[in-house]
Amino acid sequence: MNSLNPKVTAVDAAEKQKVWEADRDHFMHPWTDFSTFKESGSMVFTGADGVSIQDADGKRYLDGIGGLWCVNIGYGRKEIAEAVAEQICAIPYFSTFGHHTTPPAAKLAAKLAELAPGDLNHVFYGCGGSVANDTAVRLIHFYFNQLGKPTKKQIISRIDGYHGSTYMAMSITGVKFDHIGFDIDEQLVHHISCPNPYRRDPGLSEEEFCRQKVQELEDKILEIGPDNVAAFFAEPIMGAGGVIVPPKGYHKATLEVCRKYDVLYVSDEVVTAFGRLGHMFASEDEFEIVPDIITCAKGLTSGYLPLGATIFSDRIYEVVSKPQAEGAIFTHGFTYSGHPVSCAAALKNIEIIEREGICEHVKEVGAYFEARIRELGELDLVGDVRGRKFMICLENVANKETKELIDPAAKVGNRIADACQKRGLIVRPLAHMNILSPTLILTREDVDFVAETLRESIVEVTEGLRAEGYLAR
Amino acid sequence: MNSLNPKVTAVDAAEKQKVWEADRDHFMHPWTDFSTFKESGSMVFTGADGVSIQDADGKRYLDGIGGLWCVNIGYGRKEIAEAVAEQICAIPYFSTFGHHTTPPAAKLAAKLAELAPGDLNHVFYGCGGSVANDTAVRLIHFYFNQLGKPTKKQIISRIDGYHGSTYMAMSITGVKFDHIGFDIDEQLVHHISCPNPYRRDPGLSEEEFCRQKVQELEDKILEIGPDNVAAFFAEPIMGAGGVIVPPKGYHKATLEVCRKYDVLYVSDEVVTAFGRLGHMFASEDEFEIVPDIITCAKGLTSGYLPLGATIFSDRIYEVVSKPQAEGAIFTHGFTYSGHPVSCAAALKNIEIIEREGICEHVKEVGAYFEARIRELGELDLVGDVRGRKFMICLENVANKETKELIDPAAKVGNRIADACQKRGLIVRPLAHMNILSPTLILTREDVDFVAETLRESIVEVTEGLRAEGYLAR
Repeated sequence: MNSLNPKVTAVDAAEKQKVWEADRDHFMHPWTDFSTFKESGSMVFTGADGVSIQDADGKRYLDGIGGLWCVNIGYGRKEIAEAVAEQICAIPYFSTFGHHTTPPAAKLAAKLAELAPGDLNHVFYGCGGSVANDTAVRLIHFYFNQLGKPTKKQIISRIDGYHGSTYMAMSITGVKFDHIGFDIDEQLVHHISCPNPYRRDPGLSEEEFCRQKVQELEDKILEIGPDNVAAFFAEPIMGAGGVIVPPKGYHKATLEVCRKYDVLYVSDEVVTAFGRLGHMFASEDEFEIVPDIITCAKGLTSGYLPLGATIFSDRIYEVVSKPQAEGAIFTHGFTYSGHPVSCAAALKNIEIIEREGICEHVKEVGAYFEARIRELGELDLVGDVRGRKFMICLENVANKETKELIDPAAKVGNRIADACQKRGLIVRPLAHMNILSPTLILTREDVDFVAETLRESIVEVTEGLRAEGYLAR
Repeated sequence: MNSLNPKVTAVDAAEKQKVWEADRDHFMHPWTDFSTFKESGSMVFTGADGVSIQDADGKRYLDGIGGLWCVNIGYGRKEIAEAVAEQICAIPYFSTFGHHTTPPAAKLAAKLAELAPGDLNHVFYGCGGSVANDTAVRLIHFYFNQLGKPTKKQIISRIDGYHGSTYMAMSITGVKFDHIGFDIDEQLVHHISCPNPYRRDPGLSEEEFCRQKVQELEDKILEIGPDNVAAFFAEPIMGAGGVIVPPKGYHKATLEVCRKYDVLYVSDEVVTAFGRLGHMFASEDEFEIVPDIITCAKGLTSGYLPLGATIFSDRIYEVVSKPQAEGAIFTHGFTYSGHPVSCAAALKNIEIIEREGICEHVKEVGAYFEARIRELGELDLVGDVRGRKFMICLENVANKETKELIDPAAKVGNRIADACQKRGLIVRPLAHMNILSPTLILTREDVDFVAETLRESIVEVTEGLRAEGYLAR
């Protein structure tokens, strides 16, 4: 199938059944679909190596989603296991409250400051992207309080932006589907529309569309009042909202609007950082902006251990690091902020990315990946192929002319994912779309396998949809 | 000094300086005190073994705070390093979204369901206590939405309760000092007073005081309206608020009030679970209540890796696991929910706690610890010694009769911590108090060292405070 050599980690049938039942009866999963879960339970994965994972029966799959936009360096890296075990034996944990530290936490902060653009030289740690964004909000509130601007607190983000799942991070998230059944903070957060060129008014050029979207941000700031708007949150390429690449010039123009009204720009690089687009950070290297804050997680450790970071500018640091009155301190943070073992994993992960030239590899093989997947745009079902390098979305439609969607009951995204899985490839279904975000170490042969498997699967699903009347014949 | 044999993990002077500078220049710590940080930077810890940690100069300290209420099984457990390395080599990560799982996540969920009281059989994972509580709020909102009670959303918690540092978790937190300079959600959260028997009206018996505090909860529910109150959040023993043990009968009586008005009871066991009080969970075994939700973290992995969990009842599960209309799903969760490596660490940690009888050890040696520290209540400075087993607070006062505090400028908590540190013992300063939460594997000799070192230090500090006029001679 491809260049894999996964170790055998299949388990016996009794063990598999035990795990499956424990999972179904006791583990409440993220994004659980209870219309099926209690019947079907979970697929059990027991092994992984290189670009692939392996289920409890020993069947291998090329992991087309990199865990979940995560495993940038690929699976089975013994070096990470060794660095982690060594750190556990040295000192597995100590609080970083009250000005205590460990070498990995300090060294990683310096490394991130070196890699991050501009004067983003200060690192606040958490354990994932949600908390990195939640921390950004709290930091920004503290910043404007310190500046004596207590009304400047409102947040603007975008429909289909995804920023995590704490109460605050989900409030910033603009994926409306994700809000169903839950409550969010509607006092503090405002959503503007999604800059998705594929869904723009057919009468608009991409330039006009861009101007319209940028104007919308400025209008929203003016509507709320610049004295009330603290920050704009934006992913360079929107991830879980469907890999939306905004029109050319959008990033710089929105940053300029933010600067004009003293609104802080938070670039959510939870998905895009650490190589996915061929750069350690995409904000400046891919989109030519230096934001005030970058949030990251996932690729920071390649998902090997939980870690997230909120990296912020000297300008912010100067303000938040002025001692407040009354002996008050910066009372924010987490038991696991700067966890030494997670930081040791991140340092080794970054060392591997640099040593193996993974960003260079992505520029080359990621470009080949993008090109090969774009070819699928010729298929009847595929309305749009978008994204860059190893971050790609296929949007499936009933009619390529009108961009009309297929009846949701057809579950086209799931059908394609299932057809791929049968052929040994994991892709992510997201409503009517499919997402690809593989490990960044795919060879050209792996890329060919993904492209060809996906093509076969889409063709098969298209035939099925026609037969069932979901598509015109 | 005691029964330690830490490995030598000192680093050379140049390396130490490099780490110290990287830390000062780039790592923004939780609870940073910027009146001193830029000058003094952080203490660098490079090693740990058994009950002790070691700084970059090779100096050892008995860790009287267990990392931060964390390292229950003690440092230097090679078994954890091995389990973690093994899991990394098998499969270091895969998403648990969309009904995928790995054996450690499934098995740990089943184990937690077995250990947790009553019908708390369902586990939602995050990476720490803050997120466990944040998740509890979102789960509760979803629950009442599913029940068709969209107004039943308000949260009640207590002054000096500590529930974490995401925007929502910090809003629930009632430590007023921690709110200074930040914003919190004041629409959704209400704080009632702290049930601290030491600070009760001197005219009240403990029974009367208890009745008053329970009545206050009921009054608050009635004031907000039972149709608007969703949940009551409470630590069995309040931790970061100063180890407050509520009066006898308070836990059962507050739970009864909650039941009366269909208010969910969330027991925040981030500090108390996994042995600290001699039980895997304290809610039922120590305080005879079965709450609706237990949140935990810290001792779950003994801090070796980040992990947290929100464990909830069958009753809640039945409601939240009914498929919603419109194909909606339970859209909450985190990339690192059910991280296989963190779960593998937790399973091994729980195995060690059970195999070595650490709860039994705590019942015996923790009781000795409590008794020995209580002896310090005879000192002039010590107004109150409170807590249980390996969770103790000393409240320092200027006058034991009036309970008047010492001028905050004296920084009495810090002075005692510094005096202890000089003698090879880490204790936590918390305003005018000192907190002890060591590893749970202390021997009687270790306990004697802590008690005697603390006594010497308090006596020394008392003399200094008298000399400086902070205390009457």
